[in-house]
Amino acid sequence: MPLTPDQQAEIDELRAAPRSTLRAVSEGMEAHLYKAIPVLDHGFVRVVDYMGDDAAITQAARVSYGKGTKSVQNDEGLIRYLMRHWHSTPFEMCEAKFHVKLPVFVARQWIRHRTANVNEYSARYSILDREFYIPAAEDLAAQSAVNNQGRGEVLQGEEAARVLDLLRQDSMRAYDHYEEMISQDGQQGLARELARMNLPANIYTQWYWKVDLHNLLHFLRLRADAHAQYEIRVYADAICKVVADWVPFAYKAFEDYRLGSVTLSAQMVDCVKRMLAGEEVTEETCGMSKREWREFRELWAQTTS
Amino acid sequence: MPLTPDQQAEIDELRAAPRSTLRAVSEGMEAHLYKAIPVLDHGFVRVVDYMGDDAAITQAARVSYGKGTKSVQNDEGLIRYLMRHWHSTPFEMCEAKFHVKLPVFVARQWIRHRTANVNEYSARYSILDREFYIPAAEDLAAQSAVNNQGRGEVLQGEEAARVLDLLRQDSMRAYDHYEEMISQDGQQGLARELARMNLPANIYTQWYWKVDLHNLLHFLRLRADAHAQYEIRVYADAICKVVADWVPFAYKAFEDYRLGSVTLSAQMVDCVKRMLAGEEVTEETCGMSKREWREFRELWAQTTS
Amino acid sequence: MPLTPDQQAEIDELRAAPRSTLRAVSEGMEAHLYKAIPVLDHGFVRVVDYMGDDAAITQAARVSYGKGTKSVQNDEGLIRYLMRHWHSTPFEMCEAKFHVKLPVFVARQWIRHRTANVNEYSARYSILDREFYIPAAEDLAAQSAVNNQGRGEVLQGEEAARVLDLLRQDSMRAYDHYEEMISQDGQQGLARELARMNLPANIYTQWYWKVDLHNLLHFLRLRADAHAQYEIRVYADAICKVVADWVPFAYKAFEDYRLGSVTLSAQMVDCVKRMLAGEEVTEETCGMSKREWREFRELWAQTTS
Amino acid sequence: MPLTPDQQAEIDELRAAPRSTLRAVSEGMEAHLYKAIPVLDHGFVRVVDYMGDDAAITQAARVSYGKGTKSVQNDEGLIRYLMRHWHSTPFEMCEAKFHVKLPVFVARQWIRHRTANVNEYSARYSILDREFYIPAAEDLAAQSAVNNQGRGEVLQGEEAARVLDLLRQDSMRAYDHYEEMISQDGQQGLARELARMNLPANIYTQWYWKVDLHNLLHFLRLRADAHAQYEIRVYADAICKVVADWVPFAYKAFEDYRLGSVTLSAQMVDCVKRMLAGEEVTEETCGMSKREWREFRELWAQTTS
Repeated sequence: MPLTPDQQAEIDELRAAPRSTLRAVSEGMEAHLYKAIPVLDHGFVRVVDYMGDDAAITQAARVSYGKGTKSVQNDEGLIRYLMRHWHSTPFEMCEAKFHVKLPVFVARQWIRHRTANVNEYSARYSILDREFYIPAAEDLAAQSAVNNQGRGEVLQGEEAARVLDLLRQDSMRAYDHYEEMISQDGQQGLARELARMNLPANIYTQWYWKVDLHNLLHFLRLRADAHAQYEIRVYADAICKVVADWVPFAYKAFEDYRLGSVTLSAQMVDCVKRMLAGEEVTEETCGMSKREWREFRELWAQTTS
Repeated sequence: MPLTPDQQAEIDELRAAPRSTLRAVSEGMEAHLYKAIPVLDHGFVRVVDYMGDDAAITQAARVSYGKGTKSVQNDEGLIRYLMRHWHSTPFEMCEAKFHVKLPVFVARQWIRHRTANVNEYSARYSILDREFYIPAAEDLAAQSAVNNQGRGEVLQGEEAARVLDLLRQDSMRAYDHYEEMISQDGQQGLARELARMNLPANIYTQWYWKVDLHNLLHFLRLRADAHAQYEIRVYADAICKVVADWVPFAYKAFEDYRLGSVTLSAQMVDCVKRMLAGEEVTEETCGMSKREWREFRELWAQTTS
Repeated sequence: MPLTPDQQAEIDELRAAPRSTLRAVSEGMEAHLYKAIPVLDHGFVRVVDYMGDDAAITQAARVSYGKGTKSVQNDEGLIRYLMRHWHSTPFEMCEAKFHVKLPVFVARQWIRHRTANVNEYSARYSILDREFYIPAAEDLAAQSAVNNQGRGEVLQGEEAARVLDLLRQDSMRAYDHYEEMISQDGQQGLARELARMNLPANIYTQWYWKVDLHNLLHFLRLRADAHAQYEIRVYADAICKVVADWVPFAYKAFEDYRLGSVTLSAQMVDCVKRMLAGEEVTEETCGMSKREWREFRELWAQTTS
Repeated sequence: MPLTPDQQAEIDELRAAPRSTLRAVSEGMEAHLYKAIPVLDHGFVRVVDYMGDDAAITQAARVSYGKGTKSVQNDEGLIRYLMRHWHSTPFEMCEAKFHVKLPVFVARQWIRHRTANVNEYSARYSILDREFYIPAAEDLAAQSAVNNQGRGEVLQGEEAARVLDLLRQDSMRAYDHYEEMISQDGQQGLARELARMNLPANIYTQWYWKVDLHNLLHFLRLRADAHAQYEIRVYADAICKVVADWVPFAYKAFEDYRLGSVTLSAQMVDCVKRMLAGEEVTEETCGMSKREWREFRELWAQTTS
């Protein structure tokens, strides 16, 4: 997403005016403020505000621990303890606000995370821009043969070319007709709230999205996951980098106890114990369904570095 | 939306098998269960489950009132009192679950109400049907000249015909190309999660939507309102009728204290008092902005029966 | 609540270290940061962090309005419009975090507002302080004779003295016994999580409470109301002053369209219209219940300045 | 908690009046309806309403899967898959409503779970009963020496007797004084909303609590856990039995994938792999902190047998 000169000027202006505050400041986050991180062909994520830092998490946790805490506890140690034991409320004490530009079909997945505040650009009130997501050649994946909800190999040759042609032509035609329908040149012009229905799901929209750190990490855990659709995962990946700079202790704990963690079912725990005791556990003796056994074996395979 | 014979048979089967329960039963709601109420050209709303009735509201309220309630209070009176004084928690004790089929652009407005449970048909996993919303001629409104977020007169003649042609042709073409891209006939076939991006916002989706009565009434207050977009209002109107049969006391209170109510600002209250005292209040002497003064006068005009 | 020298020193230290930020800054809120506003005999409210200002509200609203907004709209006018028309999401874009010290029976009312983030001092983990709320003589109200959920006149003479004696003595005795039970001096000592059960509801607790502006205003609307219990209303009143300094446009709109507003039922609207037309409406001809008619008449009486 | 004859008669009456419904019915839950399950010395839990069953979970999940599901998938298999892969929304499609009587200090922990609907008996409006939780001798635990937030051995002899005496006497005295203060016999009588502040946290309160299955299971996971305080765990244990009868497939999956599961951090996964490969991993070579290493070893110990 190449920024327009106007947009870049606005960002430069906002970053040129530091002010004085008595609040907690995260230097890592200040470095990100307002800058647009490009995602996909026309999208971006940019931080527009934030509240709190790593210390805000332990400060809130210590209200609950108060006097009982005898020694000055190491901040990172406490954050790791809280993450490990699913104490979520201290992480809710930090908040971030993002401005995101994203295709509508990605926005539809994103909004399923309900515990956040959202203000979206209104196509009922305003006119949308002529900007559509067209996948790069290497992201044009075939349907997976084994997983209804997955991708297989990258499309090649004529099939790939045909798909790109269709996506481009249909997008442009839909937008031409959108403009034609709302035009008030020599006609009344269709209501915007109706005309927008002609636009496909790869058109870009934008919103302000505000969320607390606990719910943000939950979002990232699901959407930065290998099973998430590529087009939302790239947004999650971009936000992961921002969070790592904002609250480095919390993010490291998140990597260790969430992103890189593995949850074992009661049956799986039993199998690991038997395997540690030297038993050769097999699909027949594991006590799991065929699918669970495959997932159990994939767990270990996936996490091999 | 004409039901297919299969769908009608399924509904008939579900309605043919009454069972015994010890729970509260609302006869008004039982009469609606599973039946599809047609909305727009291919959409519907149908109740698939519910919990509670008018008595469940007062039962919960009386836990909070307990022994202090000396006389046996009239159920309807208590419900009206609770509604009038914004006691929301007793209304949260009733719950309804709907199966809704609706255009994607309507679903995008609907989902902004976050306090509900939703399971939507997944176009990532499954293939969408060839069903698109095409407005009826009388709903093809022009953009409002005075309100960015509103409709003006109905389009006429050639302009109307051209709009309908464009919507129909673009829908059909987009779906043809969607099918072509995912086809595995002589090619790999594009992943479903990618192909869906070519489909416009008037395609139909469907979901299960579960919500408590308090949040349902809040939804209805906003979406059954004259300012809501017509295409979501018709769903709200259909649900209003269902709620009126489900919890008649609560619905009547909702009509009197929400749908038909008027909220006056501090300045408006002052004006009403001066007017009641015989003063001729004008735009100059009202103490409101031009826009507020217009809204104040419209309030009274709107509610004239 | 007289601060200890340690507490005052900590506040002074925090306020002595301004830092540079690129975020939006509210000068009105900076002036409040960390300072403890005394409430009741040992309680306080203090702002420990915030995000956003009046401009953050309009900024978010304009994402939804985008290009459609032709003229540069006045910020205050837009905020008033949003408040008047119940557009809640732009107000969710501001956030505040408070440190509050309050009696347990007040905390139990407060926590019923679920849309907030809370970390409370844990009496399971830590030892509570010997601090109890004892009402001032002028706040020692009798039970209302007409309203189960209300107060009547202030208690006088011996009755008042006896009540204060009981509250003081029972508090001190309960705390003595709490200390005796957890003491590990010559005995094992009861678990803190059990010993706390002996403490009465006027003991003070404390928490960090973080909430967005929309939900904060909703809290204030209910708790700064004349019908709220005095002991929570004084906290709401203190917070109202803070919000007025933080987001002055939003707070003024809140005063005009919420705190000072009046909601008329359909029946009441009808009566006002008849009264404006010169009719003498009476309890017999008003179409309301006895109780509603009284409330209708009180509405106008209350708001007479 | 021995029921009064009146309470038992009310339950018998409710259970004697089966009605006809077209909704999904869970026979396991019908058997529980209205019956009070005793918990602690005066508390109880009873189901007062519910919505949905195991089939409602798969029904909602299949809306998202639609046509893509080629074979008729086994209901239990699908439920286990959804639970294993953290698909939470289908579980939100079931709902239960409980009437709970519980000590105030337990209620204060319980209410921290915000995603539920609650109506509590109001001590502002009504008069509380003279019922206090006094622990059984075997539950009178000492403070843990190693864990601030835990219990050690059971108190013995004189120390135990003294604690029980103090709890009993302070409860009775506090209630005597509460009654004396609100009495209107020869005096005005203190307002109820003030008098309640004299009552200790072991007094019983009661509420209606309504929650969806996903959030209920989350509550049970945290509160039926060995680290939860005994006095809330007994409520969670009672509810676990009810859920097992209500939605047996979902409950079994919950046992296997949540209650009996173990989450391994990235470091722990690495250690398990090295151990499976035959390496003798020690505290020095494990790459974890001392505390994490201890927790890692306890994980395996806990789940033995």
